[in-house]
Amino acid sequence: MAILVLSGPSGAGKSTIINNAAPYIGSYYFSISTTTRAPRNGEMHGKEYYFVSKEEFEADIQAGNFLEYAKVHDNYYGTSLKPVNEALQEGKLVIFDIDVQGHKLVREKLDDITTSIFITPPTLSELERRLNLRSLDDDSIIQRRVANAKKEIESIKEFDFVIINDTIEQATKEFIAISNAARLKRSHKEIDNIVKYWKN
Amino acid sequence: MAILVLSGPSGAGKSTIINNAAPYIGSYYFSISTTTRAPRNGEMHGKEYYFVSKEEFEADIQAGNFLEYAKVHDNYYGTSLKPVNEALQEGKLVIFDIDVQGHKLVREKLDDITTSIFITPPTLSELERRLNLRSLDDDSIIQRRVANAKKEIESIKEFDFVIINDTIEQATKEFIAISNAARLKRSHKEIDNIVKYWKN
Repeated sequence: MAILVLSGPSGAGKSTIINNAAPYIGSYYFSISTTTRAPRNGEMHGKEYYFVSKEEFEADIQAGNFLEYAKVHDNYYGTSLKPVNEALQEGKLVIFDIDVQGHKLVREKLDDITTSIFITPPTLSELERRLNLRSLDDDSIIQRRVANAKKEIESIKEFDFVIINDTIEQATKEFIAISNAARLKRSHKEIDNIVKYWKN
Repeated sequence: MAILVLSGPSGAGKSTIINNAAPYIGSYYFSISTTTRAPRNGEMHGKEYYFVSKEEFEADIQAGNFLEYAKVHDNYYGTSLKPVNEALQEGKLVIFDIDVQGHKLVREKLDDITTSIFITPPTLSELERRLNLRSLDDDSIIQRRVANAKKEIESIKEFDFVIINDTIEQATKEFIAISNAARLKRSHKEIDNIVKYWKN
């Protein structure tokens, strides 16, 4: 029963690393966030995000359906509890791609089973270069992402591991090693059961 | 720059696991403890332990030469700082086989680079069986080890990982996975340097 939190700026290469590592890390569930922001070109509901209205999102907050959520750049982002719990029950490693605030909230609730990684390009200027290269975002959004990255880098000590994505091969290798250990975490409840059984 | 702490009762199979895993975990330094207890049959100075007198041990305490030390069963056990620091500088994973008290002390001083594992046989009665089987200790010592294990098991939630040594193959596999991740830990000082470099 284990959770792996990934944080780090857009453009750090998180998706590429997960895709490369996928054949080597056993069964996992990549948590799909829910958001109120508009889909970008080619993004699909249930793939990149669950896209919902502000009203739906706020109703889910009231109902206690989120493991964590936050308002960023005027939009809500959150993680629904239900699919996460189902995947944990099935013994899958649950992988989150969330921001440093989300990491804090997950840690508060599920510290015993959580391992976290901050992934970043080697430098700020390299981050800017990669964001411009992929030309997914217009200039103002890139500037906002860069500003956000500057703020987030101050929190990296809160993470269990830091991966510097300099070469994708090395970053993927490190990600695989951490995932394979992360999967071995046990909840306090599991530990209690182990101790109980152990004494008999 | 990373430390791996192993705790768990004698008879849990720690040495066997490390020996089996050795070819798969990269370069490491297995920390040799210093003790004032008498050598057992076949034990050699500089191999199982550094055997020293009570007077020497207490002088080293005064000089601040120990990373951690404790008095157990009327004898001192401790970890000298010097070889540990040298191995860390050389980029080796430093492995400690210490008790739950020692783990606490290492965590206090070097939390940022430490990963810890509690290794235990599946049950208390299996532990007793294994201790009797290896017939290294006489009955009174076995009983003391068992009593000690009962106390130590209450602290397992303080550890990052718990390995149940039911089959040695599975336990070794888990140990290798955790070691390979443990090696990727970075000290706060390393993180500071990363952030500094990152911003330029």
